Amino acid sequence: MNYKMISHVLGCVLNIEAAAMVLPFVCAALYDEPAKWTFLMCAVLCLIVGIPLVLVKPRNKTMFAKEGFVSVALSWIVLSVFGALPFVISKSIPSFVDAVFETASGFTTTGASILTDVEALPKSMLFWRSFTHWIGGMGVLVFLVALLPLSGGNNFYLIKAESPGYSVGKLVPRVRSTAKILYGIYFAFTCLEIVLLKIGGLDWFSALTLSFGTAGTGGFAILNSGLSEYSSYVQVVITIFMTIFGIDFSFYYLMLMRRIKSAFKQEEVWVYLGIITASVLVIFFNTRHLFGGAVETFKHSAFQVSSIITSTGYSTTDFDMWPQLSKTVLIALMFCGACSGSTGGGIKVSRIVILLKSIIKEVKVLAHPKSTIKVKMNGRILEHEVVRGVNMFFMAYMFIFVGVLIAISIDNLDFTTNFTAVVATLSNIGPGLSQVGPMCNFAVFSDFSKLVLTAAMLIGRLEIFPILVLFSKNTWKR
Amino acid sequence: MNYKMISHVLGCVLNIEAAAMVLPFVCAALYDEPAKWTFLMCAVLCLIVGIPLVLVKPRNKTMFAKEGFVSVALSWIVLSVFGALPFVISKSIPSFVDAVFETASGFTTTGASILTDVEALPKSMLFWRSFTHWIGGMGVLVFLVALLPLSGGNNFYLIKAESPGYSVGKLVPRVRSTAKILYGIYFAFTCLEIVLLKIGGLDWFSALTLSFGTAGTGGFAILNSGLSEYSSYVQVVITIFMTIFGIDFSFYYLMLMRRIKSAFKQEEVWVYLGIITASVLVIFFNTRHLFGGAVETFKHSAFQVSSIITSTGYSTTDFDMWPQLSKTVLIALMFCGACSGSTGGGIKVSRIVILLKSIIKEVKVLAHPKSTIKVKMNGRILEHEVVRGVNMFFMAYMFIFVGVLIAISIDNLDFTTNFTAVVATLSNIGPGLSQVGPMCNFAVFSDFSKLVLTAAMLIGRLEIFPILVLFSKNTWKR
Repeated sequence: MNYKMISHVLGCVLNIEAAAMVLPFVCAALYDEPAKWTFLMCAVLCLIVGIPLVLVKPRNKTMFAKEGFVSVALSWIVLSVFGALPFVISKSIPSFVDAVFETASGFTTTGASILTDVEALPKSMLFWRSFTHWIGGMGVLVFLVALLPLSGGNNFYLIKAESPGYSVGKLVPRVRSTAKILYGIYFAFTCLEIVLLKIGGLDWFSALTLSFGTAGTGGFAILNSGLSEYSSYVQVVITIFMTIFGIDFSFYYLMLMRRIKSAFKQEEVWVYLGIITASVLVIFFNTRHLFGGAVETFKHSAFQVSSIITSTGYSTTDFDMWPQLSKTVLIALMFCGACSGSTGGGIKVSRIVILLKSIIKEVKVLAHPKSTIKVKMNGRILEHEVVRGVNMFFMAYMFIFVGVLIAISIDNLDFTTNFTAVVATLSNIGPGLSQVGPMCNFAVFSDFSKLVLTAAMLIGRLEIFPILVLFSKNTWKR
Repeated sequence: MNYKMISHVLGCVLNIEAAAMVLPFVCAALYDEPAKWTFLMCAVLCLIVGIPLVLVKPRNKTMFAKEGFVSVALSWIVLSVFGALPFVISKSIPSFVDAVFETASGFTTTGASILTDVEALPKSMLFWRSFTHWIGGMGVLVFLVALLPLSGGNNFYLIKAESPGYSVGKLVPRVRSTAKILYGIYFAFTCLEIVLLKIGGLDWFSALTLSFGTAGTGGFAILNSGLSEYSSYVQVVITIFMTIFGIDFSFYYLMLMRRIKSAFKQEEVWVYLGIITASVLVIFFNTRHLFGGAVETFKHSAFQVSSIITSTGYSTTDFDMWPQLSKTVLIALMFCGACSGSTGGGIKVSRIVILLKSIIKEVKVLAHPKSTIKVKMNGRILEHEVVRGVNMFFMAYMFIFVGVLIAISIDNLDFTTNFTAVVATLSNIGPGLSQVGPMCNFAVFSDFSKLVLTAAMLIGRLEIFPILVLFSKNTWKR
């Protein structure tokens, strides 16, 4: 194990976190909040640890798979711990466990909160909270690879371990260029959303924080009422942008490159849009008695479906009060998640498609044992390793789900609360149902459960295996 | 597709069902119930359809995989429909949908009931209801293969499609002998339990029906209070026998053949006993405040764990009132299920073991991409096809789970009820929690949901693929 390389990466990550804290510092300065000193102090703290780690240059700059996984897993833990410091030091969130939960929820773009009154927080704290979504959405190590001429080692493993999806497509041959393109698209769409929200009459602070939450598919709101009090225009803009950020970014890259045909050949995007349409229709007809008129019903249905499938978790209405059919559809969408290569969480549409195709193939092979059928995606045959990887991800997701569910059931809350709390954290959604519904929060859980759910958020965001590799004896051998 | 062969098998199955109805007929005659004429009539009805089907001898006696799957799937549907006739004709269960639900629940050894007052039924009806458990436990087609010199075709596909587990072990080279051995062990253990229950002071009727329910891991009780009113001796005997019937029958065969070493080498049996021990301990400590003393707590914990993991579903107490941790453990056991090659349902312990081993392997391979690691079971390397089959079973289970969950949520019952109703039927357990808890029943569901759950029971009992093959276009081509 190349320990020096790993600590080098961790140092870089801490320095990036320090740089990221400049923005909430500026925000605090503009609103003249005392929290500005907190952010300055925390940024310095990050640098105090970060700079020495970066200065120790590794002699051997090669980075293999296990170093990639371990670096990514440790980076995210470090990010969450240091990112929690502003909340603790400013006493906005006095409990360290709560602050780590909230910060991990931010970086992992979960959006699950332990705060019972978000409006009581200083604006700069809310800004930091939402900004963690934006940082975590596309990934810190992707950013690292994009910006810094990192050591010349094989950075691909870093992106691979951090990016969501069954197979990380290199858009262009060079890893660094791919990372830059991804961040470029991400940045452009975010700016566009900010502008559109500003046009809709929001102040800069609201436009920025809500856009960060949408872009990262995070879901932290800055009002206790969630997004219910905003105008229909704002809600519709956010609905559209949530859907946009749930699509594989390579789709936009292909569009930019005018490879329209290739872009529209991506099965996953069509299935994703198909699932959204079907879910909106079911929920529309199931909830139409709850709202005044078809337009209002459609707006809420579309907003909530888009919010849940992309794992954002914003809400314009208390969907815990919806009929059971609508709620069950939303729970299913929580498992499903958005597209691979987007900022969304969950199992991912492409994996679901591959799994369903594998099952269909198995049924055909069972009926005709001598036939040879291959699983295809986007017209190409999938390699055995890809299919196996998808299978294993699904299994691991389910087993971890059961483990977390049993662990938090010690708190003796009801089954619906526990079940949806687990899927809401493991798929990085945010709200669940019952006691963790959109109008409630995660403060009901004990510190033990909060830590378990924090782990679930990190496991979910990094798509399980980096964390498992961290805990495998095999990784640390020799 | 060899249609004549399939209709021949269906004919045989109907004749066996007619023969099976002789027992409840005798029961009705002994208790002098008018239902005896119902059973006689229904048996004749089965023969009227069955005999002509058997008489049309297929010219081509070969049976391939697809004929095997289709025969088994159709046989179980036919069994459930004809088996429901006594209930409908006698007006014990006037609704045809309800009667089919109850009969499918019997044959699939689920034990979920739509009856609100079982004690109101004639004794012979309760006898038939419990006897369906015994018939379904080991399988009707296994019985067919064991007893009848069926056509000389390849009967292995019939056993394969009907038997639970990831790989059907032929105990001896000849399929027919294997089937005979399985039924021999099954019969012997059932008799032993009947005798032990008789010694415990039960009348013959109770001893027989409870033993049928234990042997098939079914779970239909003959009292409204379930098994709570019986003596501790009876409850302990049933606890032990439930555990026994949840073990792979090849374990007993190896013991009989004095191949003790081979028998004890079966990993699955040890993991199964390990899961039981761990679950009993957790539930014991979690529920000890509910009962008067450690012995009482231990008795209920052991009974309930054994009942749920083996998918029997008997209850000695209302475990829906237990703390959430215990309930969550029970729900996890519902998914887990018993050993392959037993009469129990669920995913099966061996599959869980193989899946966990695959995940561990995947983590190792990710950290060391060049290493070659094979998944082993009982000291032997598992073939790729076996691992893939297990993966596919797990996926299919989960997807069908979600589909059934969404479908029955139309009834607008609470999430806990729906979720546990699906696992209780798909894993052939019987009771769930909340409104389908051990002291409640499935009468709360609409006819549509009852039919969906009936399908779930059949899909679960036949381990999914025979039913999927039935609905695949590919099966019926050419």
